[in-house]
Amino acid sequence: MRDVELAATDGRRVVVIAVEAGEEAVAGVNEVARRRGIRAAQVTAVGGFAGAEVGYFDRSARDYLRIPVPEQVEVLSLVGDIAELHGEPALHVHAVLGRRDGGTVGGHLLRGEVWPTLEVMVTEVAAGLAKRVDPETGVAMLTGTAYG
Amino acid sequence: MRDVELAATDGRRVVVIAVEAGEEAVAGVNEVARRRGIRAAQVTAVGGFAGAEVGYFDRSARDYLRIPVPEQVEVLSLVGDIAELHGEPALHVHAVLGRRDGGTVGGHLLRGEVWPTLEVMVTEVAAGLAKRVDPETGVAMLTGTAYG
Amino acid sequence: MRDVELAATDGRRVVVIAVEAGEEAVAGVNEVARRRGIRAAQVTAVGGFAGAEVGYFDRSARDYLRIPVPEQVEVLSLVGDIAELHGEPALHVHAVLGRRDGGTVGGHLLRGEVWPTLEVMVTEVAAGLAKRVDPETGVAMLTGTAYG
Repeated sequence: MRDVELAATDGRRVVVIAVEAGEEAVAGVNEVARRRGIRAAQVTAVGGFAGAEVGYFDRSARDYLRIPVPEQVEVLSLVGDIAELHGEPALHVHAVLGRRDGGTVGGHLLRGEVWPTLEVMVTEVAAGLAKRVDPETGVAMLTGTAYG
Repeated sequence: MRDVELAATDGRRVVVIAVEAGEEAVAGVNEVARRRGIRAAQVTAVGGFAGAEVGYFDRSARDYLRIPVPEQVEVLSLVGDIAELHGEPALHVHAVLGRRDGGTVGGHLLRGEVWPTLEVMVTEVAAGLAKRVDPETGVAMLTGTAYG
Repeated sequence: MRDVELAATDGRRVVVIAVEAGEEAVAGVNEVARRRGIRAAQVTAVGGFAGAEVGYFDRSARDYLRIPVPEQVEVLSLVGDIAELHGEPALHVHAVLGRRDGGTVGGHLLRGEVWPTLEVMVTEVAAGLAKRVDPETGVAMLTGTAYG
């Protein structure tokens, strides 16, 4: 993983991460966020996965159905954010993945094994944004509170 | 709806909106843009809808075909902008929605009933950007003019 | 093509491009990047194509399979970046395209013939970011180096 932090005079950093072949995307981005102290950011990315697992939130089960994608796919879009949950920065991104014939599959990104590369743009939006787990749904939600 | 405005020293604000369960997404974001005076912004979001309606622009009819999506879906991507049309800020976003089996459906977002949450990042890019309705197509288009 | 550069006091420019009917999207955005000297940016866009061609990177062939999309489609998302390759700014974006029935197709954007418009947000993230072609895969990859 190569990541470079681009200083911004207004204090909002942009971090460009090149996640490399064989690395897992969610763990990789979370590791950079922790190391660099990024607790509130917008995230977008493109690249490729050698395999992935995405989730669909099942309302009655209050949990994610796991949808395996065991093939090489283009990462057509990866959009989401970083906010703080239980005191740690947590990446929350959804992915649209493109198959060999151009067909697509997508969901909440649970795991993505990068190949050949994943180019991630992390744009800090504040010192911090808080999430809490909603007791009714079990989903981590923005509290609408910024801090820092 | 909870929205928090993150001041930026260069005058470009970032507004993070957590649209809540049962609220309609397009109306909600437009309401925040009007209230906060945001007339030129980039918009991205992820979350979930309990139901939605997207559109496909029919060239011969010069209008949107309406595609109903009457089911719980992941909002895999929501990308677009806010610009001023007829003197009011107007949200223009396209959505890719993910079904229970990971299959996707998408279009111009006409309506999205949020569940459990929709996390919207609104990044101001200028004081204002103007749109006008193109007489030939009936589509609102950026004029390439910034103001403010 | 109409493009407007929005000055930012921190030196990171935002360029809004309205690519017009009949223009090709990849060439158009690259032309603006060259003319304005943008060598490191995040890119998002929405709009429509009268036809497009997307690619799927074939690991064994080390080249893109070309997937033609010979129909009017909504550009549901277009996400990626601009970085410098062989001394020139190079746009790298992936697209998700929406058909008349809401079905989607996507890939690495090779070519998109705009109709009626494509609204592109180019957000500069640094003076420059370098890419090099990886000899093993033939893919242009971020080197993790910023300059400028």
